[in-house]
Amino acid sequence: MTLLADTVDALRDVLATDPGPVVEEARRRWDGRVKPPGSLGRLEDVGTRLAAIAGTCPPPVPTRPVVLVYAGDHGVVADGASAWPSDITTFMVRTMVAGGAAINALATTVGATVTVVDVGVAGDLDDLDGLVRARVRPGTASLAHGPAMARSEAQAAVEVGIRTTLGALDGGADLVVPGEVGIGNTTPSAALVARFAGVADPATVVGPGAGLPEDAMATKRRIVVDAVARAADLDDPVDVVAEIGGLELAAMAGAYLAAASRRVPAVVDGVIAGAAACVAEALVPGTSRLLLAGHRSTEPAASAALAHLDAQPILDLDLRLGEGTGACLAVPLVQAACRALADMHAIPTG
Amino acid sequence: MTLLADTVDALRDVLATDPGPVVEEARRRWDGRVKPPGSLGRLEDVGTRLAAIAGTCPPPVPTRPVVLVYAGDHGVVADGASAWPSDITTFMVRTMVAGGAAINALATTVGATVTVVDVGVAGDLDDLDGLVRARVRPGTASLAHGPAMARSEAQAAVEVGIRTTLGALDGGADLVVPGEVGIGNTTPSAALVARFAGVADPATVVGPGAGLPEDAMATKRRIVVDAVARAADLDDPVDVVAEIGGLELAAMAGAYLAAASRRVPAVVDGVIAGAAACVAEALVPGTSRLLLAGHRSTEPAASAALAHLDAQPILDLDLRLGEGTGACLAVPLVQAACRALADMHAIPTG
Repeated sequence: MTLLADTVDALRDVLATDPGPVVEEARRRWDGRVKPPGSLGRLEDVGTRLAAIAGTCPPPVPTRPVVLVYAGDHGVVADGASAWPSDITTFMVRTMVAGGAAINALATTVGATVTVVDVGVAGDLDDLDGLVRARVRPGTASLAHGPAMARSEAQAAVEVGIRTTLGALDGGADLVVPGEVGIGNTTPSAALVARFAGVADPATVVGPGAGLPEDAMATKRRIVVDAVARAADLDDPVDVVAEIGGLELAAMAGAYLAAASRRVPAVVDGVIAGAAACVAEALVPGTSRLLLAGHRSTEPAASAALAHLDAQPILDLDLRLGEGTGACLAVPLVQAACRALADMHAIPTG
Repeated sequence: MTLLADTVDALRDVLATDPGPVVEEARRRWDGRVKPPGSLGRLEDVGTRLAAIAGTCPPPVPTRPVVLVYAGDHGVVADGASAWPSDITTFMVRTMVAGGAAINALATTVGATVTVVDVGVAGDLDDLDGLVRARVRPGTASLAHGPAMARSEAQAAVEVGIRTTLGALDGGADLVVPGEVGIGNTTPSAALVARFAGVADPATVVGPGAGLPEDAMATKRRIVVDAVARAADLDDPVDVVAEIGGLELAAMAGAYLAAASRRVPAVVDGVIAGAAACVAEALVPGTSRLLLAGHRSTEPAASAALAHLDAQPILDLDLRLGEGTGACLAVPLVQAACRALADMHAIPTG
């Protein structure tokens, strides 16, 4: 058995349990707390979802959130799909390890640790201390010209996500925020969302990412449309990821599978994360109901992914940065939902 | 000089400073951080607002948030304006002091303390330890039949808010979340918003509050319309508050004035808070740009207040509970905006 197969099996066992009774128990518990019924609005939905994820009500209050940032590069950048060069991935990995990126500031605020995992950066990071080294290959091949990677590499990247997430959980983490950094990764993300959500015209979910000028958008759209067409007949989600990419996307999918298999909540960030969650859902249908959506990114593929996953994001703050920032900001709201469900007094009877 | 007059003077001095340069400095600082320009979305707006409030960039990161819950009762409850009896106010004050309300769970999550201030509860709380006693009168008279209170009482209630907020700031608090509990208080809130925001038909901003049945809504609308008509010719905002109520609303207005006068951010909660912020804005025009809007309540008067205050709430989670819950949930996002502006590395030059 591979680590992926083991994790899929464990997750299927979790999903075989009917969530109905615990969801019903959570709704009854909310209605019995000292407040008008439903008056905590969407926070009640979040708490109920957390009970379903944990399989128990009230669910445990997460106190040790961890951000796992997966870093990878994309050959498609050479084909004009990004406003930024791949060097920026390497630079941002160094910045994150040094504590100077947005995700570091946000993680500090919410009491989360940040671990950066090199699953496929193209640049040199040999000298960098404090980085988790799990590079499957130095960036993908360009999906503009053929498969982004071999099937074995896609599976290895998924397993990097599984292994690092299980490691974090074994270390005591009880809430997982998968993040990413990878110049060019909105291109494979749009393609993955289009493929898995069955978007009729994949060009409609292509956005500007981190500032692609309008005159380069036609190229990006054509690349996405072509890649989705090539992936149309591939049945195995791992084959689809190998065709489209990318390494950090595969790892994030593995992170979701791993957290869900242990009934630990994972928060889905923006468009890259949404694409990775679509991969996880394709690998094990039903996974998405064990995840939480943290934030609605402004990229069009983000909304398509959320719709496909039937997810209502907690925040909508027009973020379009990635790194896990939107999901990280949702952490205190996830904790608050749990704590309210656990700690609020019951309405006195009689 | 009264405490109110002193606070108004101090606040006018703060508002006399042109916020333009510090706002410009904050925007330049955001654009110089290691991220695509604008990619932190509304979080950047929050950070810029915080710089304007503090009068310095980067603004200090708040680490000692305090929730101040003002409690008061409303004579209008006897006229059918609420689904709940006034006894519930007393019960909820006891629940909050015991740590069992929603606001306690949320405050714990975000690391805030909760202080409950009796500014005008009608019920007996003499035996209760841990309550700040500042009762101006035991509930208002019904605004359905005449003034809710005397002008001197309205001013005293505003000053309770000022005094308790300045006390919290003197004790080290650096972020203020005014909350409230008061059965019936969506009725005066709708009337205050209609009056100060100049809503053409006050009936349109009347909502169901904590579950008023549709067949009782006509009564609530009539009460609001009549009260707004009586207050139409009153020029002094304190006279308007005396006419309409309520005691905890007046105290919250004082809390906003006090925090703004010290350049400390205060987060506006839902519809009651929005009405109180309209009072503060009427007392000292410009106050609203020194406040932050935490959450969009589902009550229609909440959106009218936010529009009047030109405020974009950080969260939109369909909460309709009050207590300060929506504003409390926004605390980590306020802290995150500050911390990102302060801690993120600059884009290397050259």
